[in-house]
Amino acid sequence: MAPKLDRYFQQVDDLSDHFIERLRKAVAIPSISSEAPRRPDVIRMGHWLADELTNLGAQAELRALGKQHGTDLDLPPVVLARYGNDKSKRTILVYGHYDVQPAEKEDGWETEPFELTVKDDGRMLGRGSTDDKGPVLGWLNAIEAHKKAGIEFPVNLLMCFEGMEEYGSDGLDDLINAEAKKYFADADAVCISDNYWLGTEKPCLTYGLRGCNYYSVEVSGPGADLHSGVFGGTAQEPMTDLVRILGSLVDTDGKIQIPGIAEQVAPVTAEEDGLYDAISFTMETLHESLGSKTTIFEDKKPTLMARWRYPSLSIHGVEGAFSAPGAKTVIPAKVIGKFSIRTVPDMEIEKTNECVYKYVEEVFKKLGSKNTMKVYAQHCGNWWKSSPKHWNFVAAAKATERVWGVQPDYTREGGSIPVTLTFEQATGKNVLLLPMGSSTDGAHSINEKLDKRNYIEGTKLLGAYLHYVAEEPQN
Amino acid sequence: MAPKLDRYFQQVDDLSDHFIERLRKAVAIPSISSEAPRRPDVIRMGHWLADELTNLGAQAELRALGKQHGTDLDLPPVVLARYGNDKSKRTILVYGHYDVQPAEKEDGWETEPFELTVKDDGRMLGRGSTDDKGPVLGWLNAIEAHKKAGIEFPVNLLMCFEGMEEYGSDGLDDLINAEAKKYFADADAVCISDNYWLGTEKPCLTYGLRGCNYYSVEVSGPGADLHSGVFGGTAQEPMTDLVRILGSLVDTDGKIQIPGIAEQVAPVTAEEDGLYDAISFTMETLHESLGSKTTIFEDKKPTLMARWRYPSLSIHGVEGAFSAPGAKTVIPAKVIGKFSIRTVPDMEIEKTNECVYKYVEEVFKKLGSKNTMKVYAQHCGNWWKSSPKHWNFVAAAKATERVWGVQPDYTREGGSIPVTLTFEQATGKNVLLLPMGSSTDGAHSINEKLDKRNYIEGTKLLGAYLHYVAEEPQN
Repeated sequence: MAPKLDRYFQQVDDLSDHFIERLRKAVAIPSISSEAPRRPDVIRMGHWLADELTNLGAQAELRALGKQHGTDLDLPPVVLARYGNDKSKRTILVYGHYDVQPAEKEDGWETEPFELTVKDDGRMLGRGSTDDKGPVLGWLNAIEAHKKAGIEFPVNLLMCFEGMEEYGSDGLDDLINAEAKKYFADADAVCISDNYWLGTEKPCLTYGLRGCNYYSVEVSGPGADLHSGVFGGTAQEPMTDLVRILGSLVDTDGKIQIPGIAEQVAPVTAEEDGLYDAISFTMETLHESLGSKTTIFEDKKPTLMARWRYPSLSIHGVEGAFSAPGAKTVIPAKVIGKFSIRTVPDMEIEKTNECVYKYVEEVFKKLGSKNTMKVYAQHCGNWWKSSPKHWNFVAAAKATERVWGVQPDYTREGGSIPVTLTFEQATGKNVLLLPMGSSTDGAHSINEKLDKRNYIEGTKLLGAYLHYVAEEPQN
Repeated sequence: MAPKLDRYFQQVDDLSDHFIERLRKAVAIPSISSEAPRRPDVIRMGHWLADELTNLGAQAELRALGKQHGTDLDLPPVVLARYGNDKSKRTILVYGHYDVQPAEKEDGWETEPFELTVKDDGRMLGRGSTDDKGPVLGWLNAIEAHKKAGIEFPVNLLMCFEGMEEYGSDGLDDLINAEAKKYFADADAVCISDNYWLGTEKPCLTYGLRGCNYYSVEVSGPGADLHSGVFGGTAQEPMTDLVRILGSLVDTDGKIQIPGIAEQVAPVTAEEDGLYDAISFTMETLHESLGSKTTIFEDKKPTLMARWRYPSLSIHGVEGAFSAPGAKTVIPAKVIGKFSIRTVPDMEIEKTNECVYKYVEEVFKKLGSKNTMKVYAQHCGNWWKSSPKHWNFVAAAKATERVWGVQPDYTREGGSIPVTLTFEQATGKNVLLLPMGSSTDGAHSINEKLDKRNYIEGTKLLGAYLHYVAEEPQN
């Protein structure tokens, strides 16, 4: 039986100005986790969030995580909170983050980044509006609307909101693993609202992420940087070797040249093959995001497959070489190329590393160089793929149809949200990614925004999801 | 008839402590031309030098060069001076520079860089000691020793000492061209003491320099930097194209892959072929300079030929890509590769540029990329090769044999000293490079030094050269 949600929805609409004020207060705290001088603001944001939760009747606590790795700087606390403790109800664990990317008006913002500005077209501009303060407050708004409407909250809600997501989530994995069988023990499923619709009109549920193996390839020879006039032609140059190695990794059309990578990729099933055509996505939107038409494919289906279910290799840059504007006649003594491979099912981290090391060593050997080469992984994070047929997803799909009037797209993301896999592995429960914002929100860019419609309907969606989750039979 | 020089030599020896004090005063002025806050020190150094010259009886003047290109900063003045104005004598124009490279104790200096420290082994450590304050003061010392010994100065000496050599010699070419038929009109030959012996024991005369064509190759596609998770596999990446282009330019053994370059190089004559074996140079010294044994050749002759008379291609770095330590998952939107070709006789700048442009465009075309590629020369300076049989060189060789007791090596340099070509072209006169310091002086490094022996015998050499120049018949 479909849950009765009209009164809840009406209450959310009635409180919409109040919810926007809540977002305004949150955006006003410049909780930039990557900038040390802003650390007190990040900590203040954590306290503000815990106070809001307490005022709403949740049991909130601030968990200290010690010092930031390699510094004397206190990490911002993780806000852990529980709302409801009824053993007869399901318990849902939700995650979000209250820190934000850096922002300054001078970067090109049309408004003050830390003053929420609501435009006539419904865009609410402000740093953190969509990433991830809006979604985090969505959960608080859902609690408040239930209270004010006098509707019983359908589940027990466990909340985990961190303050270091934009700077590596220092300390979070340890906390999740430590609390998996303690604070998070009752969780029946996990929901994370920290990604985006594929486009601007159609909601989606996200069930997959690519992983990322990040590599350094280091070539060194001379004891110090050399003058290219004096030594050019007499010394073997590390940079010459490095560009030849980097040039051997991938071609212009994205085809990875390393044997043993493509072989690991799960074959496309007939079922999967049929999914792409229905997805709401156009090449025009991609061209807009890219700011160019320099795509590898001309059509939607191979483009989505390339983003979601095939590996890719990107060359990010070179450390140790000349990188400033102008001209410098240096022979760099030691150069480190950086590249990464986005990984997909059924690739294995170690097997992929072995293929990369073997290939790069062979390419270097063929150069016949006297220089020294080292190739190694800087960090590796696995891909994640969930089952969209789990009751957690089914509930979210029903809630989406109820709020937005359409069946959601089932999407995967090309990037990684490492905490997703951490929660899945630590709790052993299904994890759902339930985005609030849309593809044009510009999470890490200037003029970050959350549309008022996405914020208010999104708040309805989070609450509705909890009602459907409460009713959905185990599967 | 060999000039009588014993009294002059004796006087130089008698004044050696005084000359070292003069160098100490010069080193104490931190005339770093590349650092704007040090500009007053550079200007002070120019005034100090002009005052010293005036005190020695020279007519010195300070020539303002206006503002530094693109800034509001006054350029340091060029010190122009004349010592002697006897129409019956030859007139020699000498060039040097009074500015220095940056230096701080913290860079790893064993002494304070701007306090001349004379070690027991004769090393005189200090920024600018060998590059180029020692050689510049060598001319002043020669004047003073002649005066104090009561010996008639053998030539008229024209001096041109600049204060921007370490930062691009802003404004100097214009001044040289403007004064070629005015202040410098009487010059019969030019002598520059601003390079180094090939090793540490044997003096040399330098008659050739390589030129340098410096290129940028720019690949762009997306409108802004992209996230490699979201766009990896769907967008053609400029960095992928760039490393493939850079990887096609030269191989590990320095062989330039661009057609039409090797074809321009002057063939080795039988006479030239016989010159290399006698040159005082060992692979061990090269290994020491390199700090490694990663040389292209195992033997002296091909190594010297590669440095002096063959072109080389070095890849300096990439602008616009990720260049910091650590990991960043960026797809750079626009990357600019920097490389340069050291040019030699009989290569032509324009012809070389054409070959580079054509080749890079062909390589890029083969990639089949939708990205945009531009290749262009940032700056080009020609090679220089003088005639070591000119009387200017013959006089210097005789003076060297007189002071050092050995015939000098005739060397070329792999790098460029652009002012050499400017003087040759502006005055139409023979230019000689007559180094004072040795290969281990570390001109741009920490612990820059000039050996006391090289400073004092070098002062004798400069004076002796002027005596031989006065006697040498026209050839």
